Amino acid sequence: MRSIYLVLDMQNDLVAEDGPSGKGPLGQQVRERGILERTAAAIAKARAAKVPIGYVRVGFSPDYRECPTTSIIFSGARQHGLFKLGTRGTEVHTKIAPQPGDFDVVKNRVSPFYGTNLEPILRANGIERIFCSGVSTIAVVQGTVRDAHDRDYAVTVLEDCCASPTADDHEAAIRVLQRFTQFTTSDTVTFSD
Amino acid sequence: MRSIYLVLDMQNDLVAEDGPSGKGPLGQQVRERGILERTAAAIAKARAAKVPIGYVRVGFSPDYRECPTTSIIFSGARQHGLFKLGTRGTEVHTKIAPQPGDFDVVKNRVSPFYGTNLEPILRANGIERIFCSGVSTIAVVQGTVRDAHDRDYAVTVLEDCCASPTADDHEAAIRVLQRFTQFTTSDTVTFSD
Amino acid sequence: MRSIYLVLDMQNDLVAEDGPSGKGPLGQQVRERGILERTAAAIAKARAAKVPIGYVRVGFSPDYRECPTTSIIFSGARQHGLFKLGTRGTEVHTKIAPQPGDFDVVKNRVSPFYGTNLEPILRANGIERIFCSGVSTIAVVQGTVRDAHDRDYAVTVLEDCCASPTADDHEAAIRVLQRFTQFTTSDTVTFSD
Amino acid sequence: MRSIYLVLDMQNDLVAEDGPSGKGPLGQQVRERGILERTAAAIAKARAAKVPIGYVRVGFSPDYRECPTTSIIFSGARQHGLFKLGTRGTEVHTKIAPQPGDFDVVKNRVSPFYGTNLEPILRANGIERIFCSGVSTIAVVQGTVRDAHDRDYAVTVLEDCCASPTADDHEAAIRVLQRFTQFTTSDTVTFSD
Repeated sequence: MRSIYLVLDMQNDLVAEDGPSGKGPLGQQVRERGILERTAAAIAKARAAKVPIGYVRVGFSPDYRECPTTSIIFSGARQHGLFKLGTRGTEVHTKIAPQPGDFDVVKNRVSPFYGTNLEPILRANGIERIFCSGVSTIAVVQGTVRDAHDRDYAVTVLEDCCASPTADDHEAAIRVLQRFTQFTTSDTVTFSD
Repeated sequence: MRSIYLVLDMQNDLVAEDGPSGKGPLGQQVRERGILERTAAAIAKARAAKVPIGYVRVGFSPDYRECPTTSIIFSGARQHGLFKLGTRGTEVHTKIAPQPGDFDVVKNRVSPFYGTNLEPILRANGIERIFCSGVSTIAVVQGTVRDAHDRDYAVTVLEDCCASPTADDHEAAIRVLQRFTQFTTSDTVTFSD
Repeated sequence: MRSIYLVLDMQNDLVAEDGPSGKGPLGQQVRERGILERTAAAIAKARAAKVPIGYVRVGFSPDYRECPTTSIIFSGARQHGLFKLGTRGTEVHTKIAPQPGDFDVVKNRVSPFYGTNLEPILRANGIERIFCSGVSTIAVVQGTVRDAHDRDYAVTVLEDCCASPTADDHEAAIRVLQRFTQFTTSDTVTFSD
Repeated sequence: MRSIYLVLDMQNDLVAEDGPSGKGPLGQQVRERGILERTAAAIAKARAAKVPIGYVRVGFSPDYRECPTTSIIFSGARQHGLFKLGTRGTEVHTKIAPQPGDFDVVKNRVSPFYGTNLEPILRANGIERIFCSGVSTIAVVQGTVRDAHDRDYAVTVLEDCCASPTADDHEAAIRVLQRFTQFTTSDTVTFSD
């Protein structure tokens, strides 16, 4: 079964130590849980197994013309100048930097399946299994798992490479996904293509 | 702003007192929380406000030919003979029975936005706001809120008309939805079209 | 490669001899080209090859509550009382009647891929190749071929089982599909699963 | 009713005088019909009316990793090195060059509604009417009109800003779209927002 590893929203605006979220509760969780290091290890394993990597990033034109005014989530981004394409904030953190040949999926909403070329990518490459992790567990990880489930992809979440603004949020998100996906960790995952 | 009230998966296989789930933990939650009575009250308010009602139901042909073999969730349904279209199990509970003119949305997966005519219905009727509730909070309610959010619908969940197999599951699901939706209750909701 | 044969909009409102379209130009084309007989032959071949059949039908609730008021195409349907679910008009013509186990896909717009459970069906059954035919070539056949192409399904049109209100329309539709699909006929098609 | 003008696939690989298609039949049609000049005039009118412009482009990573191997259309592109993102071939022709603030929609297939951020853009901006034109009439223009129709957008095609590899192809494509859309020309169009 052909696989892909989706690294979700691991961009500087959310995970850089000196970034707007990195200085706050999400950044603290990311550091406490060693998310960047664990994700780097998982990516290395996926590359070794020749499983393609897809970096998913959320981003808008600097004037936010693709961004809804109604969303609670994105009105914060707009207010604080987050997620501007072409700036460092939407680039993937250097510790887990993309390499030539990786997939780049830019999205304008929460789920990577909505309004993106993720599905054309999955279909063109005959992919049937999705490994995924990222921030936050309550937003993009949930969206990925749920949409992948409904489209009959096998899904595995690398739990120790996911974080939310609080540990309770993370645990709640994992709890509600129990019946939708399998869980593994960066240590124990076996990528196979 | 035109609205709709989506009543999610409130079908006998899940909420009937003598049904397969009704006898188990989900049924206990439904009864303890008075879900059927509260939902009936909310539906009455929506009807009084001329807000259309959409009943969402999960169902398959009796041989499950539209049902994936891979899903953890649906393999249970298949094993226990649940969700067969044309049987009582996929009919909405009589306490909150549909009336002529209500919308009927049948789905083959968890989210009512995937593989159904929900979006054609919303578009044909110029609907911009979705009120919703149902069972379970961790599955169909989550899916509805997230997909509606990404498609720029305003969403309001009637929290006291939702239930999950355990109170902890319900609370976890509500927790992770905080930034995606507004919450209200059957007592305080004001439907307006 | 798993296959399906989609029989598109071959319902009484469009192809019955005494129906609203059957009495007009489309009906004349259907009879002149022997569409019902050829489709019956193709269906028999598909059944013999154990290729599943999917009947696609366009239909609305009798008050047309799922039907857009803006569409040029569907305002005609609304005006003339066509495509009402639960009436003979939306039933498949008896000469090519469905059998138990066939798929039934009801749609509210032109393309069978939009707002229907076609994609859940294709995915649950691992289908990668779509054979199709029906009426009209300029509407549902075009929509099926184009949407299937973009989703990376192999597509084959049974050209002699398709018709449009005029022979020129049919030929124009076939012409513009040349680069999107392969063509075959009911005589020469080989279904294989 | 808020509007957008979608300029479809008017990129150098398809319309540049010295490009791979520009030297062939499509380029000849584009020049004979004055497509670039007419499109420039239409864009100027849209800008004057404050109607936003959306440039749609087809493109892939240089190794075609998002491109299906099965498509008749795209296997030609792959073979001839067309549609590589980051090269001049996927840039819009300088005669109709984008300006800051215009929308940029990159697609991996034929229809701009599949696997792109077009729908998030339309929703975020409350757009209900789509004006469109481009090359070719048989491919991207058809796909745009059909998908927009099914999603209940009002659609108007600027017929004299569209071309196909032959005049017969163009006329066939226009013919089969008669019931799906309105037609206008760059001279007579009135954009209004």
